[in-house]
Amino acid sequence: MPIIDAVDFFYLAMPEVLDIGDGSQDLLLVRVQAGEHVGWGECEAAPLPSIAALVCPMSHSACKPVRDSVLGERLDSIADIDRIGDRVRANSLDLLQADHVLSGIDIALWDLLGRRESAPVWQLLGVTRPAAFLPYASVLFGDSAQETLAKSRAIREAGYRAAKFGWGPYGRGSVAEDADQVAAAREGLGPDGALLVDAGTVWEADVEAARRRLPALQAAGAVWLEEPFVSGALDAYAALARESGPVKLAGGEGSHNEWMARQMIDHGGVGYVQIDAGRIGGISPSRRVARYARERGVTYVNHTFTSHLALSASLQPFADAPDGTICEYPLEPKSLAWDATTGHLLPSPDGLLRLPDGPGLGVDPDLAALRPYLLDVDIRVGGRTLYRTPELA
Amino acid sequence: MPIIDAVDFFYLAMPEVLDIGDGSQDLLLVRVQAGEHVGWGECEAAPLPSIAALVCPMSHSACKPVRDSVLGERLDSIADIDRIGDRVRANSLDLLQADHVLSGIDIALWDLLGRRESAPVWQLLGVTRPAAFLPYASVLFGDSAQETLAKSRAIREAGYRAAKFGWGPYGRGSVAEDADQVAAAREGLGPDGALLVDAGTVWEADVEAARRRLPALQAAGAVWLEEPFVSGALDAYAALARESGPVKLAGGEGSHNEWMARQMIDHGGVGYVQIDAGRIGGISPSRRVARYARERGVTYVNHTFTSHLALSASLQPFADAPDGTICEYPLEPKSLAWDATTGHLLPSPDGLLRLPDGPGLGVDPDLAALRPYLLDVDIRVGGRTLYRTPELA
Repeated sequence: MPIIDAVDFFYLAMPEVLDIGDGSQDLLLVRVQAGEHVGWGECEAAPLPSIAALVCPMSHSACKPVRDSVLGERLDSIADIDRIGDRVRANSLDLLQADHVLSGIDIALWDLLGRRESAPVWQLLGVTRPAAFLPYASVLFGDSAQETLAKSRAIREAGYRAAKFGWGPYGRGSVAEDADQVAAAREGLGPDGALLVDAGTVWEADVEAARRRLPALQAAGAVWLEEPFVSGALDAYAALARESGPVKLAGGEGSHNEWMARQMIDHGGVGYVQIDAGRIGGISPSRRVARYARERGVTYVNHTFTSHLALSASLQPFADAPDGTICEYPLEPKSLAWDATTGHLLPSPDGLLRLPDGPGLGVDPDLAALRPYLLDVDIRVGGRTLYRTPELA
Repeated sequence: MPIIDAVDFFYLAMPEVLDIGDGSQDLLLVRVQAGEHVGWGECEAAPLPSIAALVCPMSHSACKPVRDSVLGERLDSIADIDRIGDRVRANSLDLLQADHVLSGIDIALWDLLGRRESAPVWQLLGVTRPAAFLPYASVLFGDSAQETLAKSRAIREAGYRAAKFGWGPYGRGSVAEDADQVAAAREGLGPDGALLVDAGTVWEADVEAARRRLPALQAAGAVWLEEPFVSGALDAYAALARESGPVKLAGGEGSHNEWMARQMIDHGGVGYVQIDAGRIGGISPSRRVARYARERGVTYVNHTFTSHLALSASLQPFADAPDGTICEYPLEPKSLAWDATTGHLLPSPDGLLRLPDGPGLGVDPDLAALRPYLLDVDIRVGGRTLYRTPELA
């Protein structure tokens, strides 16, 4: 009867972290051990506050360090993973960062369980044949429309049939400049490629600002407009959704629990709900959201901007989607995110992406390659060491 | 033109923190300095993860340490406080803990501005005569109904006309045991006292479990049932609200941004929205929620379980409420929370509570009394010290 006896977090970062919307510049790797069994996960989260939330002293009965709800727990089955998640959510109710911390742990628990049973996670989830996803290349807008055109052409030439452009100057300049950017992305991608646009919450809750961008998006035949508003601005989402016509709204990556994702579906009117397993609490709540979305005619899509370990984790929850379902595929990750794993999820010659069938997540961390990126963390409170980066082995 | 040149966090705790639902066992004090001006605030948050989120290295353009968005900013007016809050929310969009961190900073900015202009915060907010609140004594349920009865009698004898009982065994045992607890609370309080019951999210989203407690609450004439469910379970709130009759639902303390509070009002059907200024991002968003609630016929109430600095901060946003509006008043704080300030907000002989009319929050931290509770924190990443507790002076 395996008992969880170690939960360790490793803070990895590029030598230089730039002030750009690229989430692949650092990485929080999670290792969970139960006896001789090991599982790996990743939090899509600020590493230092997450480590602090893992080990912080208790504030009161509903504000405990996340690790205290995980260590010493039995891990025999999927029900145990659910139970541990419930424990963390109850015992760390008032610890805001806890959902992000739990995410990487839940992913590692699934990986561990799969490795122990020599089964891929999707099989543990009851899927017999995982989907062949249509990966969209996810990149930042260029600083100019010309640069975006070049990026878009390169994506088409690399064989992608779908691409998402986001952040950068989009939404920050004039309506005409944004229209040029969108037209450039369409031109490079060709008339048949699926074009997705990500506004990165730039209009916060300003429906009118978003509305002015709709004609250019409609003219370019964009599939979706992503995150015009912050996650909580449900009424703004709903208002824009009523006017956006064939351009559906997408959102939900900010969801740090399944309730938020359900609200995007029930009250925000999105056509696509985007979930990052590394933020929402792991594979378990992601899976529940995927089911909830499907029952309501909303398409579940992963949000992934980091390593292929995170990519595998984020695809598992909707492995039973129909073939050809769109999925996010980070195209320009920093070397850290690429180096993080020995294997990678690569599109097949047919352009489709399939989950690996190795045990667990089917992706192994490349510990030797990661070591140069490792940042030692040392946290002391009241003279007592609460955390010191363990050996990455 | 005063520029913010220092933002410091101090982690204070009781010598022993117990595994009980008492949030007054530690305290995160915030000091903001701009030239010779100083303001004080408090985060109702896990101290260590909040300090980490204040100083952590940048992960990407929307995941920056909170301090970077505050230091060097101009602080001349209320508009500057709003601007700084917007900066933090945008620059730390992906840093979950940031809202809790911002809370104490926003409070300290208001305090600083008030002290500089020799005006109480409520006056800066445009209030000419602050409300005389009806404080409810906020305590935990006893372990037995007998113990709750004794607590409730003591509250009545201390002159309180309203009391809230929460957490402890409530919701964890049988429906009959919960009914005994509620009846005991009513008996001790006498027939006229306002009785409030706090379920502390114990039923998560289980409407049926909550429904079974309604008859006892109705029989006891409870004013509200607080937090039957977790904050995000809006549909469960709405379903129970349709059946709860004269017992209104209360909730919202988990709101870490104003969107969440608005959702409790718009989609959760609460009669009372409870906001902790130390969690939602400070006095600024609290004030906006107070207005939003009033326009929709929902009563805004503070959530406060710690010091009288936090109490003053949490009452300012609805200082323009009608006299007799109910407010939370922590009755059994640990010595840390009491010792934290030189002055205290005490009910007048008429039983009503009024905000102080001194400058800023009108409450001064008692630095000498706090020093024994101070925990030194030392955080190093990659060999570099990111945080070391400064002198508390």
